[in-house]
Amino acid sequence: MPLRYYEDIPVGDVHDLGSYEADRSELLAFAERYDPQPIHVDPEIAAETMYGGVIASGWHTASSCMRLLVDGFLAETETLGSFGLEELRWRNPVYPGDEVSVEVRILEKTESTSRDDRGYITSETEATNQDGEEVVYWRATNIFLKDPDE
Amino acid sequence: MPLRYYEDIPVGDVHDLGSYEADRSELLAFAERYDPQPIHVDPEIAAETMYGGVIASGWHTASSCMRLLVDGFLAETETLGSFGLEELRWRNPVYPGDEVSVEVRILEKTESTSRDDRGYITSETEATNQDGEEVVYWRATNIFLKDPDE
Repeated sequence: MPLRYYEDIPVGDVHDLGSYEADRSELLAFAERYDPQPIHVDPEIAAETMYGGVIASGWHTASSCMRLLVDGFLAETETLGSFGLEELRWRNPVYPGDEVSVEVRILEKTESTSRDDRGYITSETEATNQDGEEVVYWRATNIFLKDPDE
Repeated sequence: MPLRYYEDIPVGDVHDLGSYEADRSELLAFAERYDPQPIHVDPEIAAETMYGGVIASGWHTASSCMRLLVDGFLAETETLGSFGLEELRWRNPVYPGDEVSVEVRILEKTESTSRDDRGYITSETEATNQDGEEVVYWRATNIFLKDPDE
């Protein structure tokens, strides 16, 4: 299947990216390495907090959603990467065993004014848990190659 | 040492959080799991791009900076976590072997209007490589407990 260029990604498109299960040992290992706050790595301390137990590092949740975004959308496009995010929100905690579903929506497109071969696409990625509660949200701008034949 | 409350974190404070070395095998392993785009996982394809070789997933760079932010700042505070980021920018690529230095600056404080026991602190985290080039930047708002004795 040919990869999708800038022109092939219309505003308004919504992609269901599937889901992942928040694996307890992976959450703990990720947090030990990258975000060793007690709420993420210490079950005893976490049990005494408002959360009642360990929760995922927000960076683990975002990275896990990124995986689904790559597999279900970016891998099929001619993307040149991203400048970053305009907003990243952790709305609700992710607990071990949660099932997190992700979708991406195409919001806006802008052709580059300085480079003929590319355009910028703003999208929002939203993840919800098995109870329909939003857990993470971000808005990003990615760079995509334009179709050389158009 | 007692943990620092909202009152103990003045606007204008800058914390040098030290640095980490971007380890090639860690970059590849992280990207295989969370961000398997060719530029992050496939040395041959990456060599043909403008980057000339594999670069770190932006999520790996952010997560690695988070580790330094926890160790060098958050672990010494009474933080209740974060709502998220107002902005996250990947300014320049991180290559295997790069030395990435991180600092956090306290920008703004706002007392909660609904909860007497807490306040919100906006900070910016900035990371630069060994050549002084900025690689990642974010602005975040964290929740901190107020000192019950004040």
